[in-house]
Amino acid sequence: MERLRFSADAAFTPRDPLLDGITIAPLTAPFESGCPVQAAIFRVAPGGRIARHRPNNGTQILAVLEGSGQISGADGELHPITAGEAVFWSEGEEHEMQSETGLTALILEAEELRPWRNRP
Amino acid sequence: MERLRFSADAAFTPRDPLLDGITIAPLTAPFESGCPVQAAIFRVAPGGRIARHRPNNGTQILAVLEGSGQISGADGELHPITAGEAVFWSEGEEHEMQSETGLTALILEAEELRPWRNRP
Repeated sequence: MERLRFSADAAFTPRDPLLDGITIAPLTAPFESGCPVQAAIFRVAPGGRIARHRPNNGTQILAVLEGSGQISGADGELHPITAGEAVFWSEGEEHEMQSETGLTALILEAEELRPWRNRP
Repeated sequence: MERLRFSADAAFTPRDPLLDGITIAPLTAPFESGCPVQAAIFRVAPGGRIARHRPNNGTQILAVLEGSGQISGADGELHPITAGEAVFWSEGEEHEMQSETGLTALILEAEELRPWRNRP
């Protein structure tokens, strides 16, 4: 058993021009270490965002834990997203995320994630 | 882009004798579908628990998002855990989790997760 922390005081501010007003608290070691999944808690300050980009890390699930914002996928159309909602982006799908009021999200990345499908 | 929900109303109550007072809202499709990772939000009611067991799904990370409880690993000794803290259990490591007051946790399972290591 090994313990770790992902509270705000355990987070770091990434140097990434795509990320604005965001801190990251990882749960897993980086891909480079051989971990097949990356999971991290992203805290987005009011007005913060992940700028539109085409990812090169396979598939992704973003799950909003607190707060709300807007996301888009391949077509670039922004849709609202709030706590309790998640989004799956397929491999190489261009996307973005922004929040006027701030949010906290889990981001999961792996080569071949498959999203849960809720019953209609 | 595909959307999904993991709010309390999207959760189900698992029929698993190891799980007591728990609902599950998955983020990913099951292992059986070919997804290499399982991620789900577990909501534990006051007095609820994951009974002590030896898992057969590889490694696991449990991250407490809200509330608090107690966890143990191979040695069976219970330790407190609270929101912002996570625990990594290695492959086949016997473990348990319980909460007197209730908690919400993310559980990640995969063959070879590696936990993030906070700077001391």
